[in-house]
Amino acid sequence: MQTNDLTGNAGVTDVKGDRSLSPHQQEDKDLYLRVIDKNREGIFVRGAKAHQTGSLSSHEIIVLPTRALRQEDEDYAVAFAIPADTKGLIHIVGRSSLDTRELEGTDCGNIRYSKYCPTLIFDDVFVPWERVFMCGEVEFAGEIVGRFSAFHRQSHGGCKAGKIDAMTGAAQIVAEYNGTSKVSHIREKIIDMIHRAETLYGCSLAASYEGKKEPSGTYFIDPVLANASKIHEGKEMAEVGRLLVDVAGGFVADLPSDRDLKNPDIGPLLQKYLKGAGDVPTMNRVKMFRLIEKMVLESADTISDIHGGGSAAAHRVTISRESDMDYKKRCAMRLAGIEG
Amino acid sequence: MQTNDLTGNAGVTDVKGDRSLSPHQQEDKDLYLRVIDKNREGIFVRGAKAHQTGSLSSHEIIVLPTRALRQEDEDYAVAFAIPADTKGLIHIVGRSSLDTRELEGTDCGNIRYSKYCPTLIFDDVFVPWERVFMCGEVEFAGEIVGRFSAFHRQSHGGCKAGKIDAMTGAAQIVAEYNGTSKVSHIREKIIDMIHRAETLYGCSLAASYEGKKEPSGTYFIDPVLANASKIHEGKEMAEVGRLLVDVAGGFVADLPSDRDLKNPDIGPLLQKYLKGAGDVPTMNRVKMFRLIEKMVLESADTISDIHGGGSAAAHRVTISRESDMDYKKRCAMRLAGIEG
Amino acid sequence: MQTNDLTGNAGVTDVKGDRSLSPHQQEDKDLYLRVIDKNREGIFVRGAKAHQTGSLSSHEIIVLPTRALRQEDEDYAVAFAIPADTKGLIHIVGRSSLDTRELEGTDCGNIRYSKYCPTLIFDDVFVPWERVFMCGEVEFAGEIVGRFSAFHRQSHGGCKAGKIDAMTGAAQIVAEYNGTSKVSHIREKIIDMIHRAETLYGCSLAASYEGKKEPSGTYFIDPVLANASKIHEGKEMAEVGRLLVDVAGGFVADLPSDRDLKNPDIGPLLQKYLKGAGDVPTMNRVKMFRLIEKMVLESADTISDIHGGGSAAAHRVTISRESDMDYKKRCAMRLAGIEG
Amino acid sequence: MQTNDLTGNAGVTDVKGDRSLSPHQQEDKDLYLRVIDKNREGIFVRGAKAHQTGSLSSHEIIVLPTRALRQEDEDYAVAFAIPADTKGLIHIVGRSSLDTRELEGTDCGNIRYSKYCPTLIFDDVFVPWERVFMCGEVEFAGEIVGRFSAFHRQSHGGCKAGKIDAMTGAAQIVAEYNGTSKVSHIREKIIDMIHRAETLYGCSLAASYEGKKEPSGTYFIDPVLANASKIHEGKEMAEVGRLLVDVAGGFVADLPSDRDLKNPDIGPLLQKYLKGAGDVPTMNRVKMFRLIEKMVLESADTISDIHGGGSAAAHRVTISRESDMDYKKRCAMRLAGIEG
Repeated sequence: MQTNDLTGNAGVTDVKGDRSLSPHQQEDKDLYLRVIDKNREGIFVRGAKAHQTGSLSSHEIIVLPTRALRQEDEDYAVAFAIPADTKGLIHIVGRSSLDTRELEGTDCGNIRYSKYCPTLIFDDVFVPWERVFMCGEVEFAGEIVGRFSAFHRQSHGGCKAGKIDAMTGAAQIVAEYNGTSKVSHIREKIIDMIHRAETLYGCSLAASYEGKKEPSGTYFIDPVLANASKIHEGKEMAEVGRLLVDVAGGFVADLPSDRDLKNPDIGPLLQKYLKGAGDVPTMNRVKMFRLIEKMVLESADTISDIHGGGSAAAHRVTISRESDMDYKKRCAMRLAGIEG
Repeated sequence: MQTNDLTGNAGVTDVKGDRSLSPHQQEDKDLYLRVIDKNREGIFVRGAKAHQTGSLSSHEIIVLPTRALRQEDEDYAVAFAIPADTKGLIHIVGRSSLDTRELEGTDCGNIRYSKYCPTLIFDDVFVPWERVFMCGEVEFAGEIVGRFSAFHRQSHGGCKAGKIDAMTGAAQIVAEYNGTSKVSHIREKIIDMIHRAETLYGCSLAASYEGKKEPSGTYFIDPVLANASKIHEGKEMAEVGRLLVDVAGGFVADLPSDRDLKNPDIGPLLQKYLKGAGDVPTMNRVKMFRLIEKMVLESADTISDIHGGGSAAAHRVTISRESDMDYKKRCAMRLAGIEG
Repeated sequence: MQTNDLTGNAGVTDVKGDRSLSPHQQEDKDLYLRVIDKNREGIFVRGAKAHQTGSLSSHEIIVLPTRALRQEDEDYAVAFAIPADTKGLIHIVGRSSLDTRELEGTDCGNIRYSKYCPTLIFDDVFVPWERVFMCGEVEFAGEIVGRFSAFHRQSHGGCKAGKIDAMTGAAQIVAEYNGTSKVSHIREKIIDMIHRAETLYGCSLAASYEGKKEPSGTYFIDPVLANASKIHEGKEMAEVGRLLVDVAGGFVADLPSDRDLKNPDIGPLLQKYLKGAGDVPTMNRVKMFRLIEKMVLESADTISDIHGGGSAAAHRVTISRESDMDYKKRCAMRLAGIEG
Repeated sequence: MQTNDLTGNAGVTDVKGDRSLSPHQQEDKDLYLRVIDKNREGIFVRGAKAHQTGSLSSHEIIVLPTRALRQEDEDYAVAFAIPADTKGLIHIVGRSSLDTRELEGTDCGNIRYSKYCPTLIFDDVFVPWERVFMCGEVEFAGEIVGRFSAFHRQSHGGCKAGKIDAMTGAAQIVAEYNGTSKVSHIREKIIDMIHRAETLYGCSLAASYEGKKEPSGTYFIDPVLANASKIHEGKEMAEVGRLLVDVAGGFVADLPSDRDLKNPDIGPLLQKYLKGAGDVPTMNRVKMFRLIEKMVLESADTISDIHGGGSAAAHRVTISRESDMDYKKRCAMRLAGIEG
């Protein structure tokens, strides 16, 4: 489920300080990453990028501006790539909701499904010129972040559709373990989950298929469909999680610990009382509840549903800006019999 | 906006009588269309098909069964095509909500946007053998209706996305006429409309792009994505209409008649008081309200959003049946660390 | 279902012209109702009030300003009551979607459930001083409309909860007529309808019970709960209608006319094919479809769900303004352990 | 936010084993709590009750059946009260998502807002006769659980309305800290939160006000309104959490640890880069993010939104069963002009 690959992490989101102010208006000028010095060999940058999914498992950190910029923000128009272990680049892994489970070695449920999003501090980091892609060209800052975001929003749809597939499978299995898989409202909730997966998948696929060839020869996806997909993700992943909890039942909240399950006194009692339908081993049921707990309550992943690739307000603005409103108005005028 | 073409109307929906009974269990055996006699030249059929969009403007009426059938329903497994003016075939145009407006020649708003869905009665109609496609093959009834429905549900998404485009254009124009086009909640509602159009469009497009080649050489769309699109249509078109009314305001409900607008005593007062923003002629504003009234309150079209191509329950069953649940379960098992 | 009583209609909604401008900024100063002259006996008013539910069956028309006003809008701060047949007061009944059905005497479905909302033009109407409640007191305009609106929004909840009761009954009956009343998704949809009725009813009841005694001795309802109810009405009545259509089926769109049902040639065929489950007379089923058509597609009533008592944006602003945000902030500060 | 009081915890939810089977049909007869023996002094019970909010801080554990029962389930019709530290009664506190934070003494955000729901195992517990309320009266099992549930569902609405108040306060404060409190989409999301609080509160209040006096002299709330409130809770609390995350931003997911914030090397950098708008201390912003993390991602509380007082399916069935459908049908019949 990791959205980064192993070769590059894209650092976009500045910490932003007072969001009602533009970068150069901040009291502390470093609250958006900026160029603080240049010499013949390269540039020095200072600032911080938040929520950097997988930065510690990436070879390269690729940095972009986080927003459109104006002339006064010239120092903030900077894009570059540096190795993840560059001097002065500090990765701070924050707390996520289930982080210590894995350290404790118990109650993890799984070790294959996880996510971390460090805060990266650029404590006066040097970047040689051959690795600088933008330095001062404020007029392109909006476009570079817009291009990146559109791809990010499109690929999220495919990614999260896959996550819903796994969540749907978990819902079906836990319903079988509970003996409820044939109950009509359980079946309807599972269909509701599938429907959301297909919606994300369909819009993201269409965004790709409708991609247009650029003058450079690369293809650029359809940004309206990509953002349409992401709006669903931001709203519907939470609903999918809620449906999964509804199907699974209350043990997502408070399942006894593996240590209690293995305790010589209490363990056998718990094994007895946590037994589900048929001859499914109790521990399989326990593992499935732990997976569901992680899918629904792990902070880094559930919150990237909402804020990954920018927040809903940004997706909506993009949809509005990129849609052909004149065409829509002409359709209505023609039908209404009004001369344009 | 007509969903039929000029050469063929597909007659699927039987009148069905008591829907808790299968065709052969009905007290009146004719409540599903059936073969009542055969001879060397052809077959005789009796029954009725409801909601036949555009039957009067089609050259051919193509008849299919309306559901999967069992052996006892053999007489109902019948498919054929006949000219729309065949003897014994009666087209009864029902009442739709705004039907007489066009007859009156006033208050139409437009004459380019309309829809009629007659009830077709097959009063012992003869069909020659060369026009009979199915006669008694109950085992294929489910598949033929499933195939037809999948295409219908997929194409509806594209069709209604186009309708939302025109509704969005109308919302934008009427907001400009009202002087509200820059108000933030109005802008958000228009974005909500666009988002729904793109969702229908994206899922329908993806259903086509993901089409698979059949042994015969034709392509069959992806039925899960097609039905995902239709589920949105059945729920979201009503929401789009509601948003359009919210943007437009109360005159969608009770706009004075053209006859009053042209009346020598009252007309000038109405022209004065129905004036909107800027120098837009009052009659343009009136025409736009009439179009919106039709888009939102015309029964044949708004109800086809919900029931066209089968109702939501049918789309949901299809999504469930056509999805690969084993794959989804394997994803969850692997993540949970359970041996399959 | 009429929301007015027989003694008074409240005229609030001005026609408003360009809504981005305040009353005195309009090019035509009459687009909000205003005082154009005064003398010893009374005042003369000019303007128009739109969407005046039941004005023709009211003894008195009570006029209020439509919004908060500033000093420059002094002429618009006017409130009074006049008999509905006062000289110069013109009632113009607009077109609603099913209006001619009743004139034709066929296909009405019912004559007990109807609504009309005329446009009232005040063509220089004289109001004697003893019937003038406000004249120039701009500082109270916002409060008078706020008070009226709060009561209107509260009572709407009770009114529309009753409408949903009747819609739910219609859904249940038509499902029985169709033979689908035991199908699980039909039952769920009926529960969805009841849930919405209870939500409107509960919030409106609570708004009344929580009413506070005013210094004058009258009671004023809780405005936050009243507006909470109205927000649900504006969104959920459309959903209730959609659910009712989903339950009822396609004949809401295109049911054959009573004239065809009584036609000597076609009538018997239609009577045969429109038969439902059991021994219910076909005409009862027809009547129930006509009622549903009216409940769902009659413009005046369905659009008052959205715009009656002001539009959703107004209800939301009221909720925000009347809520005690300081209390909510203190709750969060205390829990977070932050000194206030 | 604790829903239990200090004197009594109500133990209802059995562990249930295979939910497609009734208690006596289970392979292991103990999967619903049952009477295993009786003598002159009292009864012996065996079984387990899950999700017992606050059992460790209650003086008494009050046990009820979890469902309606039939004659074969006689041993399961048992209700009683025992002290929380009775011999053989084992409280097993399960894992909740943020449980170790408090043990670690860091990153808690708050210590005033927490919830635990142990599994209680009744390992052959003795209950003296004077504390047994029901023993074998299967015909009253459904009623006793129905009564309890109705009160529980009603009080949940008030409780969670209060939780939303605190969440709304947190949203407003964090928006001020971020410098976004005047952005229109942020304001709209906060209104959406308030609206949901008022809906729960209104329906719960109305359920109380509409309470009817019972023959015994006690009052019983209106069960339809109580369940209407709970249905909103089960769906809308998740939406309120989503809105709060949307307003707050990504640091709900991955905020650096207090240990890093206090680290001599890294701490000052984090203090600098986590600074928000104005002169708000960085640590206040940190505390508010920790509170939001807890409100949105703490498992025991968020999952009780969905399953506390029974799951949504149970609330829906109750609404359906307790509503007066005959009245609703009569409304529709009268309007449609059908003789009943």
